Amino acid sequence: MPIWDDVVPPEERALYEHGGWGGVAGFGKKPALLVVDMYTAFVDPAYPYASPDAAQTVTAIRELLTQARASAMPVLYSRAEAARNVAERGRWKGKGRLQPIMARPEAYQIVPELQPLPTESVVVKTAPSAFHGTNLVSQLVVHAVDTVIVTGAVTSGCVRATVVDAFSFGFRVVVAAECVCDRGPTSHKVALWDIYTRYGDVLPMADVLAYMRTVRSGVAGDARVTHVAASHSRGG
Amino acid sequence: MPIWDDVVPPEERALYEHGGWGGVAGFGKKPALLVVDMYTAFVDPAYPYASPDAAQTVTAIRELLTQARASAMPVLYSRAEAARNVAERGRWKGKGRLQPIMARPEAYQIVPELQPLPTESVVVKTAPSAFHGTNLVSQLVVHAVDTVIVTGAVTSGCVRATVVDAFSFGFRVVVAAECVCDRGPTSHKVALWDIYTRYGDVLPMADVLAYMRTVRSGVAGDARVTHVAASHSRGG
Amino acid sequence: MPIWDDVVPPEERALYEHGGWGGVAGFGKKPALLVVDMYTAFVDPAYPYASPDAAQTVTAIRELLTQARASAMPVLYSRAEAARNVAERGRWKGKGRLQPIMARPEAYQIVPELQPLPTESVVVKTAPSAFHGTNLVSQLVVHAVDTVIVTGAVTSGCVRATVVDAFSFGFRVVVAAECVCDRGPTSHKVALWDIYTRYGDVLPMADVLAYMRTVRSGVAGDARVTHVAASHSRGG
Amino acid sequence: MPIWDDVVPPEERALYEHGGWGGVAGFGKKPALLVVDMYTAFVDPAYPYASPDAAQTVTAIRELLTQARASAMPVLYSRAEAARNVAERGRWKGKGRLQPIMARPEAYQIVPELQPLPTESVVVKTAPSAFHGTNLVSQLVVHAVDTVIVTGAVTSGCVRATVVDAFSFGFRVVVAAECVCDRGPTSHKVALWDIYTRYGDVLPMADVLAYMRTVRSGVAGDARVTHVAASHSRGG
Repeated sequence: MPIWDDVVPPEERALYEHGGWGGVAGFGKKPALLVVDMYTAFVDPAYPYASPDAAQTVTAIRELLTQARASAMPVLYSRAEAARNVAERGRWKGKGRLQPIMARPEAYQIVPELQPLPTESVVVKTAPSAFHGTNLVSQLVVHAVDTVIVTGAVTSGCVRATVVDAFSFGFRVVVAAECVCDRGPTSHKVALWDIYTRYGDVLPMADVLAYMRTVRSGVAGDARVTHVAASHSRGG
Repeated sequence: MPIWDDVVPPEERALYEHGGWGGVAGFGKKPALLVVDMYTAFVDPAYPYASPDAAQTVTAIRELLTQARASAMPVLYSRAEAARNVAERGRWKGKGRLQPIMARPEAYQIVPELQPLPTESVVVKTAPSAFHGTNLVSQLVVHAVDTVIVTGAVTSGCVRATVVDAFSFGFRVVVAAECVCDRGPTSHKVALWDIYTRYGDVLPMADVLAYMRTVRSGVAGDARVTHVAASHSRGG
Repeated sequence: MPIWDDVVPPEERALYEHGGWGGVAGFGKKPALLVVDMYTAFVDPAYPYASPDAAQTVTAIRELLTQARASAMPVLYSRAEAARNVAERGRWKGKGRLQPIMARPEAYQIVPELQPLPTESVVVKTAPSAFHGTNLVSQLVVHAVDTVIVTGAVTSGCVRATVVDAFSFGFRVVVAAECVCDRGPTSHKVALWDIYTRYGDVLPMADVLAYMRTVRSGVAGDARVTHVAASHSRGG
Repeated sequence: MPIWDDVVPPEERALYEHGGWGGVAGFGKKPALLVVDMYTAFVDPAYPYASPDAAQTVTAIRELLTQARASAMPVLYSRAEAARNVAERGRWKGKGRLQPIMARPEAYQIVPELQPLPTESVVVKTAPSAFHGTNLVSQLVVHAVDTVIVTGAVTSGCVRATVVDAFSFGFRVVVAAECVCDRGPTSHKVALWDIYTRYGDVLPMADVLAYMRTVRSGVAGDARVTHVAASHSRGG
């Protein structure tokens, strides 16, 4: 059963299916792995931005990270930074950043389990999307990427905004379901439903890993692409 | 009772309130009215993209439109266009555009009730956000706008993406609740909840109109701004 | 002798060569042809924006256009449109648009010799760069393009701004020297010099055509890429 | 005599004047000061990117900086950073970055004379324009800026690209002539000519300072704006 079925009622799902939404978009040939905002403040429950499931999400992302490096896929991260002034901060309504714990040096650092290699890019962002106000799209163009596998936190916020921008910039977008987390389950599930119906594929991480294992020197093998797409059409 | 309370359970709402999310961001001094994707295919129930409540939404937006013009506020619209090729079309998963009705000349035209004046801008877009791949942000800068009042369709798709971009570009964002509509109520309500907690204000259109009535020659009156913000803190 | 040698003095050229600037960047595997602003007002000498050499430039671009279509390369155009208001118009200092001739219906239409096919994209822009306020980068991503061959008018204005953006978005950039023109030769030559030293290759159109002839179904042949690059290092 | 008169011949200048180009665009009400790429590698003659006149430019910019802070204008900087990989580096043709001196820790730091205050923003960029791949436009929107005073290095490269983007985003643009420098005088002068004819004003720094002295709490005084514009029409 898809993850959103207990929140999105059958009549709404029927309406979208009837309109030809959803289905499988499929993987491309040159994927990148993107890890959105897995810094301490979004993972460690002591911080105001953490999701309850963040620890499991770290473990799941780590598996994708290992495979991405074995497959020589580009791996890119986003994180935030403490703002120096009101313009850098933007118009976020949350007041969590005012809590004293946010002044700790590790607050905005990627968690140790997902530590970027010295050659992997980390874009520093101030908006929800990892594309907004960063050069992420330029880096993906240099890598000749056609598919962005999105992971991280939180599903209904920075992950979703990043998915919408990746889609808008013309990339195929895949979300590995176990590799994203949120503070609240309703927003999490509806974000995945909205993504699935319109912008990209939402797949079990096993399917994403199966695809990634076909990637050698950054390029996907043809046969498996079709197969994985097919397996998704059963589950999604 | 806020519109999302029957979808977002109390414990999730409590979690966000406890984290200091939500509240009132408030209006600025130089607002613009933005009408997102109110073209025939999103309004007329004969088309695959229409929302059930689109007709009432048209009536509601029309009221804001009248006041915006009386207040000499900039008014801007977005709409789509039939794609000439796969690159223009982008990677939308919906198949509604393949239906024969989409070939009618009025399919992509703003509905007559909301017809733009010859001097009002209509940006033509291919992505969810009215900002993506358009010069909307440049036009708002020329107008020296600080507040974007967002209306249109659909709440969880193009409206939400436009809100996230307006917020990311540094504008104050206000959604007039009766002036947005969606195909499905779950996505509609959760989108408004997500916007309210993080990116901008979600207000009854009466509050938005009260604010807009203070605008003369495009500039808001001071006293009323505070008052409207206060009235929202009761309801929101 | 490179085209800029009578304007950029030897000591300035020596300074850049000594600093390791210039040289050959080389073509990639998936090129697109971009035709910037070859609409009537920039070509027909009766209009205030035309370059003296525009007619020859049309002929030259036409040759590239024929080859691009034979090679199944993506072909994209940009043009402007009459502005409906001050925000659409932007802050251009030129007053040429106020001349009565600019009200003719063909003023903003691509000239007949370079007429786009019904399936080719034409982005409508208000800023110098064909990327600014358009979805050009998204279209290039969908086409999986890595190389942008830039042609059109004027060299020091919209062509140069487009080159800088193409470069900034991570694409390889090639300017076919005979396929760009300008109102004044000084700005023209210095623009090409600035592009050559920093952002991309400036090549005789014969070299560009030789490369384009290796492109089949949109993909370049390997052997010729190297060869063309080598021939450029003699001339550039 | 304008700075470009010994490079741009009279007939080319006549052609642009006849076409209604150039003239005075004028200052707005809410200016920001932008300092582009005044980091050690662009200032200290020991580094491959330095301009011969960089030391005088530092002194000139410092005067504007002092006034901007006294006037409570937003002050923003851009700088680069050593790239971690080929995608971050982009497709720059220069090889200067390979020189051992570029590994010194101060290479990418703003020079001490122009040190940003802890509350002033420094955007880190990889492309020529300070807007590309940064959130500069969002910060200017939060500050409600309408005028960007551009200073820094080099005129024909990052300064010019920044000017074109500021103009494209709808801001008034002013270049203080003594506050920009370049490696070669030809590119420097032609860049200023191209900016003057099309995108913004190129003024003696005395005129810019006269305007900035009318700015209190970030807002310009009306009377002086007109006066300064008039004085420029004599000199420009």
